[in-house]
Amino acid sequence: MSKVITHMTMSLDGFIAAPDDRIDDLFDWYDAGDVAMTTANEGVSFKVDEAGAAMLRDLTERTGALVSGRRLFDITEGWGDSHPVGAPVVVVTHRPPRHADRWPRTTFVSGVAEAVARAREIAGDKDVTIASADVIQQALALGLVDDVCVSLAPVLLGEGIPYFANLGRHVLLEDPEVVQGSRALHLRYPVRR
Amino acid sequence: MSKVITHMTMSLDGFIAAPDDRIDDLFDWYDAGDVAMTTANEGVSFKVDEAGAAMLRDLTERTGALVSGRRLFDITEGWGDSHPVGAPVVVVTHRPPRHADRWPRTTFVSGVAEAVARAREIAGDKDVTIASADVIQQALALGLVDDVCVSLAPVLLGEGIPYFANLGRHVLLEDPEVVQGSRALHLRYPVRR
Repeated sequence: MSKVITHMTMSLDGFIAAPDDRIDDLFDWYDAGDVAMTTANEGVSFKVDEAGAAMLRDLTERTGALVSGRRLFDITEGWGDSHPVGAPVVVVTHRPPRHADRWPRTTFVSGVAEAVARAREIAGDKDVTIASADVIQQALALGLVDDVCVSLAPVLLGEGIPYFANLGRHVLLEDPEVVQGSRALHLRYPVRR
Repeated sequence: MSKVITHMTMSLDGFIAAPDDRIDDLFDWYDAGDVAMTTANEGVSFKVDEAGAAMLRDLTERTGALVSGRRLFDITEGWGDSHPVGAPVVVVTHRPPRHADRWPRTTFVSGVAEAVARAREIAGDKDVTIASADVIQQALALGLVDDVCVSLAPVLLGEGIPYFANLGRHVLLEDPEVVQGSRALHLRYPVRR
């Protein structure tokens, strides 16, 4: 069954990046093993441990569309229209880029609910993965998320950009599936309905 | 070997309590199983699952002294001088309570480094456990912590009192020991030296 999931790498104290967007010490797990992994983007490859590789393969195979915020899209220059996961991207933005035809596999929509609906259509039987903290927060608040996935990195950043914030209420989760990897503990929590 | 450890129950988004100190949805794991556990405090008992019970027994047996902040001491009225863990408590405070002799097993000292040193003396071969977020943050910043323990509750609070904050730098941890319990994932991270 098609699900809407979220995935980000997070420090133990809840941050997905430092205040200046740097990800030092957070993304060590992408280079902490012996399993070489290529991705759909030629410029991006990993060397992860067996557990991390299995988790990433599973996540990648299941993902039929991604939802991203505009900020992440800008930081990555839209992944050159070729996200490492290999799926089309739906970007939430009120101001689509001027030369949007540079990203033919990317769709620009103005709201989170609309983005998730559009991504579901694109994904078909596969899952929709949301990979921007701000969009995830809005999707959680709207009750649109089925599973919350966290690759929990063994580091305390002290300050930064939070994975979760502005929820306005407690969100109860079920106990997680746990995959122990090198430099990341991979957790998948179903949202309690 | 005697260690200085920290332990608190934390939401997935990093909080040990709501802004008003309430712990709804966080402490469900203390009542989520069939194993009845009494404690050194007659008024406190738990019903936890097997995994949580084993973790708690181990933590309790290893702890020779506790370090607490003044705020937690006040909220619990000093546990009636009988902390559930069964060990003497060292409280960090600049203003000891007026009738300090009401808590004969409790020591009041004015600084975090002094509190940890005093607790080490009391604990002897056993561990020192710090169980107040503010004191933990100062002890981490001072480099006094060996292991960080977190009982990670499957809930997002959205706002509250953070376990970790004000560290002033990244604190790198080793990969954790993981115990999967009902309504809590028990994690023990050695601090990287």
